[in-house]
Amino acid sequence: MKILRFNEGRWGILEGEMVLETDAPGGNPTGRRYDLASVTLLPPATPSKIVCVGRNYREHIREMGYDFGHDLPKEPGLFLKAPNTLARPGNPRDPWGSAEPVPYPAFTQELHYEGELAVVIGDRMRRIPPERALDHVLGYTIGLDITARDVQKKDLQWVRAKSADGFLPLGPWIETDLDPQATWVRTWVNGELRQEAPTAAMIFTVAEILSYISSFMTLEPLDVVLTGTPEGVGPLSPGDRLEVGVEGIGTLFSVIGPREG
Amino acid sequence: MKILRFNEGRWGILEGEMVLETDAPGGNPTGRRYDLASVTLLPPATPSKIVCVGRNYREHIREMGYDFGHDLPKEPGLFLKAPNTLARPGNPRDPWGSAEPVPYPAFTQELHYEGELAVVIGDRMRRIPPERALDHVLGYTIGLDITARDVQKKDLQWVRAKSADGFLPLGPWIETDLDPQATWVRTWVNGELRQEAPTAAMIFTVAEILSYISSFMTLEPLDVVLTGTPEGVGPLSPGDRLEVGVEGIGTLFSVIGPREG
Repeated sequence: MKILRFNEGRWGILEGEMVLETDAPGGNPTGRRYDLASVTLLPPATPSKIVCVGRNYREHIREMGYDFGHDLPKEPGLFLKAPNTLARPGNPRDPWGSAEPVPYPAFTQELHYEGELAVVIGDRMRRIPPERALDHVLGYTIGLDITARDVQKKDLQWVRAKSADGFLPLGPWIETDLDPQATWVRTWVNGELRQEAPTAAMIFTVAEILSYISSFMTLEPLDVVLTGTPEGVGPLSPGDRLEVGVEGIGTLFSVIGPREG
Repeated sequence: MKILRFNEGRWGILEGEMVLETDAPGGNPTGRRYDLASVTLLPPATPSKIVCVGRNYREHIREMGYDFGHDLPKEPGLFLKAPNTLARPGNPRDPWGSAEPVPYPAFTQELHYEGELAVVIGDRMRRIPPERALDHVLGYTIGLDITARDVQKKDLQWVRAKSADGFLPLGPWIETDLDPQATWVRTWVNGELRQEAPTAAMIFTVAEILSYISSFMTLEPLDVVLTGTPEGVGPLSPGDRLEVGVEGIGTLFSVIGPREG
């Protein structure tokens, strides 16, 4: 099932080209129906927090200049993005024209893309073991973790680098039926493939990540967890058109706005 | 005016020993009244994000082992705490008995206190210059930024160190009439004074901090900004009783819970 959020914050499910409105995420139909092409898609979550894994693919760790050798991280390295980062995904019927442009702030000269599989929490999670973690998941969507790489290296923590307004296009919808370790993440910039990795290459599985977070942070319904980006990150320019595809979910479309003054 | 949040999430104002319920933060009276001693105080904000300044008092920067010399930070160093950190303040009529105990998680051996002046946002702030920043403030309260110092030094970012459940006792209420640069912050542990500094010693004023944050992150009503801790931070033990006083606001009471297994 594909769960989406649209217009003023309504929830719905996607059936072919039709959006069937529901009274809650994955809830009961209200009877109202819309053409997919006619709705404004919103990020399909209203998180109280967005928790992200910083280094979860070996080759991305290497490209960032770290060499763990045989000493891979023993626990997921986490960071936060604040909810002001959420940006509207493009509607597949008008992929880039309908996407909320990602700001290119004046404080950075080096905006990077990081395509990622995103998890949307269904039920509150507190101290849940890995083997029961996926039972608490509503479903999976796609996140574009926009990162200002230059200030990431110099600021005290990654707040400006990761949490500026609009730094997390998310969507286009939540897929409830997906094996998170048996899919692929791919990112294209202006039609060129830049990132491609199987989620089987993750160092920590989604179940392990969720269990670890829940051991000290209670995860609430509609919280979002980003599972890390594969190798192939790189710089963006104003006007760039992005696609992040996760097999079994679909494609997140996003566009980079003009450089801010 | 003192604005407080209580019981199931009601808002009120404090007049002497009475809580006058209002229909919103600082809103109109509903006519219902309660004895202060009879209510459960809640953190007086429902933030979409909690933005904190890491190093805003010179002497605290020195005690953490940094020596900027004449090179003080040119911009506020920020980090985030997630909303799962909020913990109920003690009611001054039963200071420690009514406080929500701060968990002492098994992952740390070095839990520290950091007493701070906290700002509660009133109106949405986006790109507001310092000279107009304080117009967007609802008022001021008191935060206890609980920090797991040992994992702060070794984790990728300060998520476990700063955002474990219950790591931010906040309260007891919002004072709307306060000059944030003309007061004092003090922390006592088991009755012993440990931190004491005038807010005039801040490197960045509250107006400068808010303006800086709003230059790239939109601040929403009831978001919380912590303004940094003065020198004198130190370790805590299970059962410790804390008081953080800010002149003109009152006292935040908190207690450390048992060590978790």
